[in-house]
Amino acid sequence: MVSMIIKNINILTMNKDKDIIENGVLVIKDNLIFDIGDKTLLAKYSCDNIIDGKNGIMIPGMINTHTHTSMVVFRSLADDVQDRLKRYLFPLEKMLVDKELVYLGAKYGIMEMLLGGVTTFTDMYYYEDQVARAAKEFGIRGVLGETIVDFPSPDSNEPYGGLEYSKWFIEKWIDDKLITPAVAPHAIYTNDTEALQKTAELSKKYNIPMMMHVAEMDYEFEECEKKYNMTPVEYLDSIGVLSERFISAHSILVTEKDIELLNKKSVGISHNMGANSKGAKGVAPISAMYKKNMKIGLGTDGPMSGNTLDILTQMPLVGKIHKLFNQDRSIFPAKEILELATIGGARVLNLDHEIGSIEIGKKADLVLFETDSINMQPIYDFYSVLVYSSNPGNVDTVIVDGEILVKNKKLFQEKNNPEKIIENLKSIKNKILETANKL
Amino acid sequence: MVSMIIKNINILTMNKDKDIIENGVLVIKDNLIFDIGDKTLLAKYSCDNIIDGKNGIMIPGMINTHTHTSMVVFRSLADDVQDRLKRYLFPLEKMLVDKELVYLGAKYGIMEMLLGGVTTFTDMYYYEDQVARAAKEFGIRGVLGETIVDFPSPDSNEPYGGLEYSKWFIEKWIDDKLITPAVAPHAIYTNDTEALQKTAELSKKYNIPMMMHVAEMDYEFEECEKKYNMTPVEYLDSIGVLSERFISAHSILVTEKDIELLNKKSVGISHNMGANSKGAKGVAPISAMYKKNMKIGLGTDGPMSGNTLDILTQMPLVGKIHKLFNQDRSIFPAKEILELATIGGARVLNLDHEIGSIEIGKKADLVLFETDSINMQPIYDFYSVLVYSSNPGNVDTVIVDGEILVKNKKLFQEKNNPEKIIENLKSIKNKILETANKL
Repeated sequence: MVSMIIKNINILTMNKDKDIIENGVLVIKDNLIFDIGDKTLLAKYSCDNIIDGKNGIMIPGMINTHTHTSMVVFRSLADDVQDRLKRYLFPLEKMLVDKELVYLGAKYGIMEMLLGGVTTFTDMYYYEDQVARAAKEFGIRGVLGETIVDFPSPDSNEPYGGLEYSKWFIEKWIDDKLITPAVAPHAIYTNDTEALQKTAELSKKYNIPMMMHVAEMDYEFEECEKKYNMTPVEYLDSIGVLSERFISAHSILVTEKDIELLNKKSVGISHNMGANSKGAKGVAPISAMYKKNMKIGLGTDGPMSGNTLDILTQMPLVGKIHKLFNQDRSIFPAKEILELATIGGARVLNLDHEIGSIEIGKKADLVLFETDSINMQPIYDFYSVLVYSSNPGNVDTVIVDGEILVKNKKLFQEKNNPEKIIENLKSIKNKILETANKL
Repeated sequence: MVSMIIKNINILTMNKDKDIIENGVLVIKDNLIFDIGDKTLLAKYSCDNIIDGKNGIMIPGMINTHTHTSMVVFRSLADDVQDRLKRYLFPLEKMLVDKELVYLGAKYGIMEMLLGGVTTFTDMYYYEDQVARAAKEFGIRGVLGETIVDFPSPDSNEPYGGLEYSKWFIEKWIDDKLITPAVAPHAIYTNDTEALQKTAELSKKYNIPMMMHVAEMDYEFEECEKKYNMTPVEYLDSIGVLSERFISAHSILVTEKDIELLNKKSVGISHNMGANSKGAKGVAPISAMYKKNMKIGLGTDGPMSGNTLDILTQMPLVGKIHKLFNQDRSIFPAKEILELATIGGARVLNLDHEIGSIEIGKKADLVLFETDSINMQPIYDFYSVLVYSSNPGNVDTVIVDGEILVKNKKLFQEKNNPEKIIENLKSIKNKILETANKL
């Protein structure tokens, strides 16, 4: 007997041929997609859990390839100011010696991601074990890495404390079915060569992702040039840390040669258009990368940088800004943008054999959009509707690993007590403001 | 006795000093804002209609300064293709000889605008009287003009039929309390000098807006240069049609001299960032215009160009793209973006004495955002939350001219039968597809 049947849905498979099944049926057995097809499947399987999708649009779960979820506790503080990272973010993060704050932020942010249709998130922060703990409680899929920096961090009195933490963290989570541990050196301007090579060794030893901010900051680029006479990407390549396990977040200030290097080493690119535009940092040349079939996914960055944690609100931005910058309204059509948000992200994480498309045998990570809201009609093109008209308020049902986590636009598992989490977040406001006002 | 009291709200007045009243109270009498202040107002007025705003955020109704609402019937058709206007839009519009299609589209689009917090919309299309009819049925405020073109249009067998239509339309609506009639020549490449001057005369005679697509298309700019050796703005100035009543939609391809001309004549600028970016048309230099304190508002353009009709989804795009293009994350902070969406739009329409801010004596056009949803917290900065994190799904209550039109995120006046309108829109899909497939 199968576990769940969802009928009366329009399935955007995002498989190789981007097949669409209108008025389709999807069958889940345990945590896997067991069958996909037309209405005849209803006669083929017996199941006492049949869900009516009410002519909604079903897509693979969206994948957030770069964020710092717990920063949501600081969201809406110090937007629109210069030199935020050093002036506000690093000082505020000193408050995170309280690991319960990281845990609270992770829970809050995970709720927002699930409600917005994110089924896998990629996170790097401090006390990353608290993020993993929150992820497990909600049942979301996560690729998680402890941030490694060359100064004392909230969870370490020593520089590079994150390295030891990482070893412990990896061993703890390596066999989990939802959590993929990773290593996460912050950036080249907060890690020396030795530290980067050590983390790359861990990535290789455990065959896990190595994620990092790359070619994001102008000072990063300038200092690297001054110090090594190389671009950040050239430097990373020269010290031997680039590989198919490497996730390069941002990748804005890259040369044609850099793109070639990244391509040759099969590096995954996390494109964070919302944060990059809000921060006036520039437009990563993903159009050139896409033409080379490189691995590209979308990311939100932390919610002090991009503010929202869902991938849906990234999609129109990505399409529109690249059309503008390339002066070509036909590039990155809606279909390709949804590709970046789903299977593209899965490729970045090297999880495309398991997630990112709706195909038999893949994990049942799924998002159902209702089509009853005014903004969801008319539908002449499913991709256009999703990319250009929908908003997170249209996400009706979210399934991760075969489990329903969101239903009727609400968190389904009340055990996590969302109201309590929201109240807790509000209650720390004054404490955070007190700190912020001193900056 | 006053008509309505709304308590427990955070009021972003958008007045000259951009005052914010936290935990405030707003008093409405008939169709006007009668008083604003703190909780002591509750003792001052007696009223049997007291609404609890539940700590939401109240802003002035948002103003859409440029759209073609009824085009929503074609939404999601032919996105991401080149030369759309002549290849798809003009031919599809031939279907609009059926004026009921214009009426249906107007009703549908008005529902979407209201649900998204738009209380005034500026529209130019064919059978504009049908748009006015729909607007009146819903009670939304509108600045409406019949499109004038030099070829036979859906509602006229003769070129420039829109001119006669306009005279009739203006006389019909000139004294309406919600509808402001306007004249609306399509563009310089679809109107000759004589027609433009005739419409300008009507605008002057009735003291009503003259709205037009200006400096939007590359071919518009090139042809104008070839024909007159002038920019589109220089040409419009040379024929004497620019005035404080003129609304220049798009205004992308403008020179420094053009900006000076527009400023000198107090022309209002409708900035349509969503449509302009999706169409890869360019970035209107509104940063320079804003510094001169010019009249600038936001517009969605028609829903085949910008897809959504609400102004909320324009806001993050406007901020982010201008930050990117100016390489400065501090320009257009969230507060200024909300200014463009409200009082800025009112200035463009020369209605800023009546709408656009929450001030005593102004029309009660108001939008209340709930703050219970995950994406609306934490709140350290009201403007940041609205511009960078909110979506149309957070709009809880919308009031136009003292009447509640949206409550609890739903259209309040069921008399308009929204379900029926949605069904009607879906039912014409095949007919439209038949036409589209031949293009």
